[in-house]
Amino acid sequence: MSYLVDKCERLNRGARALAKADTKSKNEALEQVAKSLLRNQKYILQENQKDVMKAKEMNIKESLIDRLRLNEKRINGMVDGIRKVIDLNDPVWKSDRVWTLENGLTVSKMTVPLGVIGIIYESRPNVTVEAFSLALKSGNGILLRGSSSAINSNRAIVNAIKEGLEKSSISMDVIEFIDTEDRLVVGEMLTLNKYIDVIIPRGGEELIQYVVKNSTVPTIETGVGNCHIFVDETADIEKAIDIVKNAKVQRPGVCNACETVLVHKNIAEKFLPKLYEALNEVVELRGCSATKRFIEVKEATEEDWAEEYLDYILAIKIVEDVHEAIDHIEKYGTKHSEAILTENLTNANIFQREVDAAAVYVNASTRFTDGGQFGYGGEMGISTQKIHARGPVGLNELVTVKYTIMGNGQIRE
Amino acid sequence: MSYLVDKCERLNRGARALAKADTKSKNEALEQVAKSLLRNQKYILQENQKDVMKAKEMNIKESLIDRLRLNEKRINGMVDGIRKVIDLNDPVWKSDRVWTLENGLTVSKMTVPLGVIGIIYESRPNVTVEAFSLALKSGNGILLRGSSSAINSNRAIVNAIKEGLEKSSISMDVIEFIDTEDRLVVGEMLTLNKYIDVIIPRGGEELIQYVVKNSTVPTIETGVGNCHIFVDETADIEKAIDIVKNAKVQRPGVCNACETVLVHKNIAEKFLPKLYEALNEVVELRGCSATKRFIEVKEATEEDWAEEYLDYILAIKIVEDVHEAIDHIEKYGTKHSEAILTENLTNANIFQREVDAAAVYVNASTRFTDGGQFGYGGEMGISTQKIHARGPVGLNELVTVKYTIMGNGQIRE
Repeated sequence: MSYLVDKCERLNRGARALAKADTKSKNEALEQVAKSLLRNQKYILQENQKDVMKAKEMNIKESLIDRLRLNEKRINGMVDGIRKVIDLNDPVWKSDRVWTLENGLTVSKMTVPLGVIGIIYESRPNVTVEAFSLALKSGNGILLRGSSSAINSNRAIVNAIKEGLEKSSISMDVIEFIDTEDRLVVGEMLTLNKYIDVIIPRGGEELIQYVVKNSTVPTIETGVGNCHIFVDETADIEKAIDIVKNAKVQRPGVCNACETVLVHKNIAEKFLPKLYEALNEVVELRGCSATKRFIEVKEATEEDWAEEYLDYILAIKIVEDVHEAIDHIEKYGTKHSEAILTENLTNANIFQREVDAAAVYVNASTRFTDGGQFGYGGEMGISTQKIHARGPVGLNELVTVKYTIMGNGQIRE
Repeated sequence: MSYLVDKCERLNRGARALAKADTKSKNEALEQVAKSLLRNQKYILQENQKDVMKAKEMNIKESLIDRLRLNEKRINGMVDGIRKVIDLNDPVWKSDRVWTLENGLTVSKMTVPLGVIGIIYESRPNVTVEAFSLALKSGNGILLRGSSSAINSNRAIVNAIKEGLEKSSISMDVIEFIDTEDRLVVGEMLTLNKYIDVIIPRGGEELIQYVVKNSTVPTIETGVGNCHIFVDETADIEKAIDIVKNAKVQRPGVCNACETVLVHKNIAEKFLPKLYEALNEVVELRGCSATKRFIEVKEATEEDWAEEYLDYILAIKIVEDVHEAIDHIEKYGTKHSEAILTENLTNANIFQREVDAAAVYVNASTRFTDGGQFGYGGEMGISTQKIHARGPVGLNELVTVKYTIMGNGQIRE
């Protein structure tokens, strides 16, 4: 039996028992884990220091090292995250539909845990805690494959989690960590349909595409966001400047940041100089040829429309109307988060109905597409596929259904 | 551009327009299609005759030819099916959750069509109509890849569907039929993530596994059912005989038929002779060694527990109690449909909570796991996977969600 199958068999047993646990037991276990993380803070920080040193030796850039680095505040943040999950409603064994057939059978569509969730993620060690706590609360076992660069930090965190579980009524076997840098194990993981019910990749585009293309286990595709804001003819210009600035600059390296602004031709003359004034010092602006009639920017090319910069760069295109904006988004968007800024009700409705994306905003920043912001108490990622879950993957997306049918002898005619 | 990409581009345009269509337009289009099928009945039957003749020449067994064969009654059945779908509620642009964040943003979780559904199916030409009508009502384009053995029938049906659509406000481009027996086209279809949102295989296990293993497009795994009935100590014996007989004999070749009966040791002596009497003439019984103490049957082997017979064969095993029954199902079941026959409330609850399957019955035949029976007006298949949909895939499973968010200038802090 392989290293991974052995872990998976244990995990399946743990998950099967967890599926039966009541909310109180799950919450008590989460609280024990929170306490264990605090108790083991020094050990976790020591192990994290090893990863940070290694990254420095490898001349990894500082912004990435910062994502990797833990400190007292960040560990407190993880603990706060667990306590938020404790406060959320248990998503298991609920129903929004119970009905009775003509023959008297009563059918209940009940929510049940998925079983075992696999997550393959990069860098940030806090994802280990976030993914575990959402999985536990939703009754699922979790198999974690973190980045090699964070292996010491993740191992320490998982050890602390297991120590917490040991003091609770929930089995330690509900969490397994792939404690090897061997990449072949990832390949094996992607084919263990017998043991893993869903795999969620969380990281860069390359990782996500590798998983989606190679996994025979069902996956939830997350993340890539080429997000647009369409500034319509009737937009409130001051609000529009604030929103575009927020969506571009507040945190440019994330998937819900804005990459292209589409500007209605009748507002361009008023709007673009103000946008230039607000952003030009910190953001590289690239515009279509029409844009260049109003502000002095670099010319945008076809590639610009398709690129997710994740950086201080913003593409600008002038469009005829809401329909051209929708067509542009249909052609270049990644179905993540899109916004229209308008005072025109008809255009707001058209945009929200016709744009095909996980989240479609009227008069707000695209940055709100996030499990925490939506009140989901965290997320496993943001799904950009259409099946199973779309948008932030929270507790309610980590369950499936089971039909329970109650009869008194019914047979089919 | 390949044959298939060309079809897919047209289909995507058709689906995008269809997603905006209102319920009235979709219902009128379905009624036009129903009328067109009736009008083209003679042509469809002629084309079907070609497939039947070819099957006969190839010495296909009669039960399969019967599945392929169309007649006036079966075409009327298709038309009735369409009219049932017309009567169902439109699943698009509904919400069961609208909430407001602290910052005043109102978030609505709305249902929207998936986009384009691919279906790969075997034999029965009525699936063509069922899949199309469910897809259209749920606002999705559909790409059909039927069996080579039914290619003339399916082509004729699709032509009739398009003729019907032409008389409606819905574009003919919402349906495309892969009119070639070239198997390479299936391989290409499984990788067209850009154009197809989900692929549903409907047929035998080999087809399903081929699709699940090779598709990079998300799939909904359907069908294989190794279903069990557990006859508990307190079961009503007369009802139990009727239910087991129904679940085994009423239609043995389908996925929700029963393959193994698990019998509580304390009821075996009374139950088994009656079961033998009721079934022995038509069903080959195979039992565990304990079973053979009560009735004279062939010995069941390890393979029997795992096999989906789809035939007049039934395996019998005596178990200690509900827990051993659940463990057996966990080990050998395919998570499709499982039943307990009992008068004991505690055991009924334990069984329904702990058995991990799409449908779990108390005191009823497993044969009810079916979109038609559940009131879904048909189905795309019965999902045995956990993500997206589980159990019968009807209209409500053919949608995804879109978050629409209404603001008045909110930016993220």
